[in-house]
Amino acid sequence: MPSADRTVGRRDLISDLAAAVGARHTQTDEDILAPLLVDERRRYHGDALAAVSPADTAEVATVMRLCAAAGVAVVPQGGNTGLCGGATPQREVPSVILSLRRMREVRHIDRLGRTITVGAGATVEEVAGAAAAAGLLFPLSFGAEGTAQIGGALSTNAGGTSVLRYGSARALTLGLEVVLADGTVARLGRGLRKDNTGYDLKHLFVGSEGTLGVICEATLALHPLPRQRATAMAALSADAAPAPATGAGGASAGLEVLGRLLDASDGRVSACEWLSPTTRLLACAQPGGARDPFGPGTESLLLVELTSGRAGDDLRRLLEEVLAGALADGLICDATVADGTAAAERLWRVREAPPEAEKRSGGSVKYDIAVVPDRMPVFLERAAVAVGTVLPGVRINAFGHLGDGNIHFNLLAPSGTPPDALFDREERLTEAVFDVAESLGGSFSAEHGIGQRWRHELARRKQPAELDLMRRIKAALDPHGVLNPGKVV
Amino acid sequence: MPSADRTVGRRDLISDLAAAVGARHTQTDEDILAPLLVDERRRYHGDALAAVSPADTAEVATVMRLCAAAGVAVVPQGGNTGLCGGATPQREVPSVILSLRRMREVRHIDRLGRTITVGAGATVEEVAGAAAAAGLLFPLSFGAEGTAQIGGALSTNAGGTSVLRYGSARALTLGLEVVLADGTVARLGRGLRKDNTGYDLKHLFVGSEGTLGVICEATLALHPLPRQRATAMAALSADAAPAPATGAGGASAGLEVLGRLLDASDGRVSACEWLSPTTRLLACAQPGGARDPFGPGTESLLLVELTSGRAGDDLRRLLEEVLAGALADGLICDATVADGTAAAERLWRVREAPPEAEKRSGGSVKYDIAVVPDRMPVFLERAAVAVGTVLPGVRINAFGHLGDGNIHFNLLAPSGTPPDALFDREERLTEAVFDVAESLGGSFSAEHGIGQRWRHELARRKQPAELDLMRRIKAALDPHGVLNPGKVV
Repeated sequence: MPSADRTVGRRDLISDLAAAVGARHTQTDEDILAPLLVDERRRYHGDALAAVSPADTAEVATVMRLCAAAGVAVVPQGGNTGLCGGATPQREVPSVILSLRRMREVRHIDRLGRTITVGAGATVEEVAGAAAAAGLLFPLSFGAEGTAQIGGALSTNAGGTSVLRYGSARALTLGLEVVLADGTVARLGRGLRKDNTGYDLKHLFVGSEGTLGVICEATLALHPLPRQRATAMAALSADAAPAPATGAGGASAGLEVLGRLLDASDGRVSACEWLSPTTRLLACAQPGGARDPFGPGTESLLLVELTSGRAGDDLRRLLEEVLAGALADGLICDATVADGTAAAERLWRVREAPPEAEKRSGGSVKYDIAVVPDRMPVFLERAAVAVGTVLPGVRINAFGHLGDGNIHFNLLAPSGTPPDALFDREERLTEAVFDVAESLGGSFSAEHGIGQRWRHELARRKQPAELDLMRRIKAALDPHGVLNPGKVV
Repeated sequence: MPSADRTVGRRDLISDLAAAVGARHTQTDEDILAPLLVDERRRYHGDALAAVSPADTAEVATVMRLCAAAGVAVVPQGGNTGLCGGATPQREVPSVILSLRRMREVRHIDRLGRTITVGAGATVEEVAGAAAAAGLLFPLSFGAEGTAQIGGALSTNAGGTSVLRYGSARALTLGLEVVLADGTVARLGRGLRKDNTGYDLKHLFVGSEGTLGVICEATLALHPLPRQRATAMAALSADAAPAPATGAGGASAGLEVLGRLLDASDGRVSACEWLSPTTRLLACAQPGGARDPFGPGTESLLLVELTSGRAGDDLRRLLEEVLAGALADGLICDATVADGTAAAERLWRVREAPPEAEKRSGGSVKYDIAVVPDRMPVFLERAAVAVGTVLPGVRINAFGHLGDGNIHFNLLAPSGTPPDALFDREERLTEAVFDVAESLGGSFSAEHGIGQRWRHELARRKQPAELDLMRRIKAALDPHGVLNPGKVV
């Protein structure tokens, strides 16, 4: 880690950076820096000497070299939409924020090879837009896609609602241009689908949250643009086994419905999202909330979407048939298939309501758990018992990517109690939830990453051999700890 | 690298190994060792003090510790089917061959989560068989699948004929148990589809050819078993642009047919294999060869296969329609859709004939090139000119995974000349082919890897930044060079 007392030349650093990237792009003004020094959820607050926005990879390399020479940390920051403080500098470490927002150019689209090459500063939405304009799909999709930059999405191996069919950001990465801690530029992969010439280094940078290098450009896999889409929501029958109080009700039935849909459609399920009974209530039962397609109810909800790149498939009929079978077999108690795009959007609004609903409810503590799918009902049941023991009456806002075995297991203060009741017990709640996930062989951060937030948990919960490997790699690639110190390892 | 003069305790090592894994499983007999000391193609010959076959991961760890302490290299060897000498020990380095063949157990199949967990010693065919018995598909498929072990297939990131749809071995890897150079056991990934807790280390071990660790167990992704299959072969019209002498004829047309099939089938193309005119001739026009479905001809051939996990799709009709359109548009001059499994197998026999045909023709020099698909016709054209300049009349046996942008560009001696005419010029031929691939941004080893064979080329052709990263990682993970020295980096 750069030492805080190595102050010699720090004023020179700012003028050197300004000379390298331009004074306009070397911000030291407090008002301009302020929003960059706090994370999306306002949990982490840091300091920075400056925020620099290079114009190209060569300038990023110069910034890295200048900062490394001055013993100042470099904190890459994309759209600043992360949930773990991974892009927020630390107070105690002299840092420069590195923004790639000026490097947002679409460099190349290869229609035959189905790839796009873009600068790291383009937003995820812009990448998808450029792909769509070329008749292709960039499938990565998540709430913050309009603000999140593709460099950040790759650095955090972003997930979202299309992982079930297309994989996480990692699965879409065919090539990266990265700047290393010493300012070296490395091109890893070249958009080829196959290349076994040595170690596949790009995977080290995807998901390493800017601690090993700065992603400047990426070549990404594209898919055929769907020409047909069928969207439905179902109210799931509560599982027979778990007590209804646990909130797990319906997850088993949801997994069974998903399995039938995957088989019937030959894998064309592009989304399978689940909302627990509490989530449904929060999303729909408040002023300004989404409209519950079934009216008030206590069952959990399943949102499924099938897509196909060929016009001929009758996805709607297929969806109706599977849901009719699920109804006949008692897996669901009700279902609606969207009639047209507007109706589909109304169903998606139910799925997208939870974050706002949580804010209206006084805030939440967010967990992002993965287990193998058949353990999800058990996880939901045991975790509900565990958090209920720490804070009786705690509300569990569990929802998310059931098809990936990944649930956002968010907690709200008991009805009628101030939010502090929750936040005061956060540490014990975390321990309770993570212990259950760990006991089931699960992950305590399926898609949100580590950042500052879970660094301590990583150190505690990862097996020593794995941690030691991570530290050896960090030391090998960034021996002086210039890149995003205090994050991940 | 273990030093050759550090002989103290080497006799003790054998007895320690025998104590650890059993005397029966610590072979020093020359007759038993002989076949393990030479690679599949008999290009590399090595020496070993012993070949050990541990019963489980703990014994592998003990073997690693004992060898590391004695300064003896460990060379992991699976089915010994690699084409680059990656599993053959070196003569000059005292080595122990580590075979995982006793660790072939299927540990777990998760039907809902669609994963299989197996010991590294199971053959690729055994993994696929166990998956099929559970009603699921393990799609990895290549010529040596009956002998190649899954540990080797992962260590080399094996490809084959199903990469177009399902990806290489890497894309199927959800978790690994590896033994590191110092004998530490690390479990990387746990079969979860999503896990962003720190660096994704399993990708370092996939494709690193046993130089960073020994894969002992793997959890692999499975897919729905196809319930329907449609196979066809087409004779491709020669491309308008390139001269027919180059052998590139048809690759453009083949890519266009593939694009139409992908669009029409919503991506259900599970194989798209190409055979150049010379390959067609070699495969079919010799006694004992395959049967040419179109009789003798000079066009290149395209083998395509569509599969679906649902019974309802009429893949055969779809295939016929696309091929009829391609015929009408002059992309192909003839086509046959297989009527039943036996007919499909006859078409596959044409695709599978080249390796035997090469042996009958006196042997070949094999290259394994990838470029982005739309550069393949240019690659074939330029490479043909380049090798023809080095050795006039050289026969180009080019065939393979057109859909992945990956062609086996194999060379045979000119008709009527002894094979030595070819092997004497191998170095210059290699330079000619690799220079063309490099000039087009391609890979000189798309799926075969580096091993001993291309280590020098890796050092020459990789950009220094990437090489340096590989070396830093090797040094960080195996500081004493115990694991498979002389391979890759």
